[in-house]
Amino acid sequence: MAEDSIDRPAPILFLTDFGHEDEFTGICRTVIDRIAPQTKVVDLTHGIEPGDIRRGALALAAAIPYSAPAVFLAVVDPGVGTDRRAIAIRAGLHHLVGPDNGLLWLAAEAAGGVDRAFDISESPARLEQTRRTFHGRDIFSPVAARLALGEDPAGLGVEIEAGDLKRLELPVARVEERLIEVTVLVRDRYGNLALNLGSDLIGRTFLRPGTKLRIEAGTSDGVNDGVEVCFAEAFGDVAEGEPLLYVDSSDSLSLAINRGDAAAAFDLGPDDQLLLRPA
Amino acid sequence: MAEDSIDRPAPILFLTDFGHEDEFTGICRTVIDRIAPQTKVVDLTHGIEPGDIRRGALALAAAIPYSAPAVFLAVVDPGVGTDRRAIAIRAGLHHLVGPDNGLLWLAAEAAGGVDRAFDISESPARLEQTRRTFHGRDIFSPVAARLALGEDPAGLGVEIEAGDLKRLELPVARVEERLIEVTVLVRDRYGNLALNLGSDLIGRTFLRPGTKLRIEAGTSDGVNDGVEVCFAEAFGDVAEGEPLLYVDSSDSLSLAINRGDAAAAFDLGPDDQLLLRPA
Amino acid sequence: MAEDSIDRPAPILFLTDFGHEDEFTGICRTVIDRIAPQTKVVDLTHGIEPGDIRRGALALAAAIPYSAPAVFLAVVDPGVGTDRRAIAIRAGLHHLVGPDNGLLWLAAEAAGGVDRAFDISESPARLEQTRRTFHGRDIFSPVAARLALGEDPAGLGVEIEAGDLKRLELPVARVEERLIEVTVLVRDRYGNLALNLGSDLIGRTFLRPGTKLRIEAGTSDGVNDGVEVCFAEAFGDVAEGEPLLYVDSSDSLSLAINRGDAAAAFDLGPDDQLLLRPA
Repeated sequence: MAEDSIDRPAPILFLTDFGHEDEFTGICRTVIDRIAPQTKVVDLTHGIEPGDIRRGALALAAAIPYSAPAVFLAVVDPGVGTDRRAIAIRAGLHHLVGPDNGLLWLAAEAAGGVDRAFDISESPARLEQTRRTFHGRDIFSPVAARLALGEDPAGLGVEIEAGDLKRLELPVARVEERLIEVTVLVRDRYGNLALNLGSDLIGRTFLRPGTKLRIEAGTSDGVNDGVEVCFAEAFGDVAEGEPLLYVDSSDSLSLAINRGDAAAAFDLGPDDQLLLRPA
Repeated sequence: MAEDSIDRPAPILFLTDFGHEDEFTGICRTVIDRIAPQTKVVDLTHGIEPGDIRRGALALAAAIPYSAPAVFLAVVDPGVGTDRRAIAIRAGLHHLVGPDNGLLWLAAEAAGGVDRAFDISESPARLEQTRRTFHGRDIFSPVAARLALGEDPAGLGVEIEAGDLKRLELPVARVEERLIEVTVLVRDRYGNLALNLGSDLIGRTFLRPGTKLRIEAGTSDGVNDGVEVCFAEAFGDVAEGEPLLYVDSSDSLSLAINRGDAAAAFDLGPDDQLLLRPA
Repeated sequence: MAEDSIDRPAPILFLTDFGHEDEFTGICRTVIDRIAPQTKVVDLTHGIEPGDIRRGALALAAAIPYSAPAVFLAVVDPGVGTDRRAIAIRAGLHHLVGPDNGLLWLAAEAAGGVDRAFDISESPARLEQTRRTFHGRDIFSPVAARLALGEDPAGLGVEIEAGDLKRLELPVARVEERLIEVTVLVRDRYGNLALNLGSDLIGRTFLRPGTKLRIEAGTSDGVNDGVEVCFAEAFGDVAEGEPLLYVDSSDSLSLAINRGDAAAAFDLGPDDQLLLRPA
């Protein structure tokens, strides 16, 4: 497949922090429908906490390995109306469109890295009346729609150096022989807590399936006295109400309670730190 | 129409308890789009309370009578990762895909009963890296996508006895000559309360349109002293702020307040019981 | 383009106050899919506060300028089951379907005014079992689906006088030489507050870009002592945490805080009044 070509009208995978009360996502869909009526819009989520760039970036990165060649349209954009750039990225078989604030970074990496990057802040595809407060409608959606139609991104913006893009750095877990220090990255709807330790690294630690370990809170009070946890494969491997560590569906170590809410029970959320030791 | 054949690419009607904050529904849509790009995904709801199998089952059953031949993809699955089976059911013109925990039961009944059933836990359509914590992505979505494409379910799982499927039993109303004991099944967004008495049974009770009756709470304090209620046809048949009993849009007896919130006013919710008597 | 004709199967732009917990929007989509399987449903929002007709009307009006010829299906309908009419409106290139309670009024005006109007309360397109409590499913969705298919609205209802339609009046700002009295119309997810002063009128007031002014609460305590605010073009034109007035993406004057929540900070919401004076 030639670079920048996509066989069918590409779907647009759509993620924002716009929420569900206002008509913001709806107006973006309306703009896309007018430009590219045959294009399918696939909602990833619009429930990202306002301005939570890291959460948005992680959600995009979790979805991209499962996608056909697509245009990812992502708007978590606390800096709208400042001089942060609007960008379109070509990464592997995908296009990524959004603000240059790190939101697209993890997905681009998951897709094999940035092949080309374009500043679309002054894109000729912009709506005529471009406002400085709703780039989702006025810049990102029209550019995404045209990419979905197969247009060359070089005609939609000014090429820039991939190395100049804003990156997103995740906190790095500290792994010692008998101690792992991890940070909570995501709390999901069920109260499961995703930690910053990927499955590729787990094998290099003392964590072994079926073993017991002890977790202590680094910063929160919830598990300060220490809690014994099994490193299991799935919820059902421990009794109801019991906590477990497991490799979650995004290949990260996660803390959960079988049929319970670990975040609530341990009073933990994003950015809280945990210490793991052999029991 | 031959069994298991569907004339157009069938739509996938999609219901979960995944909520709207995380990317879980989005990743399922992404998986479906890759396998069956021409298939339409119709969202029923993703706002089922986590693990509330009965609520999910009632929502599916409410939708199925209005549907063209479709694949119903439903995931309310507190037992993911245990030995509960993943199943696909053929019922009338529809396919139903989800966990074998009762979630699909009422919809299958509403569609005329289970014609064939398949254990898809080890389906060849599964994603290569099937995790034990996200069967929505790894098993249910791929199987639903292939059914939408018209594939024979016999090739997607192992046929099992319909009689072995997990059923869902709703609480049964007690109907006496001058007393009806009912249970709240659903509290909706407006505070309307659906009760476990279908329109088919109402004619066999003392309830007559336009008559007054008295409701008392069986278990809750909210209406303990009794409240007089009109059995009316629609909200506008009683004054604003007045309660009414009526046959709701799913053909169940419901309790509401005209332009008010009956659940809040009477402090009632699912599983609460009510006694109805002639006034 | 001939009146009432639409070149491709028109999309249905869908707005309700049904929320996301129940299956109400899903059943409407199911009904539409059965009647008009090739029609795309574009969700505008379903998060309108229950019964908030004005908020729904403003959201429709904000979306319609960006739309291809479409059918707008809107249900914010506290009077369902009373004698309020169900209507379909032809306005410019669009059809609007919903209750005759003012919900469609602003969008019809934004589309150039009502060309024709039809009472669809007894539409032949209604579902056979039309309930008095769910016209979204039983009347509005089937009529919208048939309009999307290109059917003549004259066959779907009884023509009525446009002048008889229920209108929606917004509060009018009071503009004096050194005083503007405005009302909050919308509080969005980010806490931005849209006021009832359109960009067309701003030029006739003392407001000039870059100037400072003073806001005082008319009715709320939050800004009672007065707050100095810059009339700026975008969030980034003021320091983080600083308030600003600006012309928002719907061309209305709005009050916001750069990277903050103005509604929370000033304890303001819809219907609160503000006084603006030169600083």
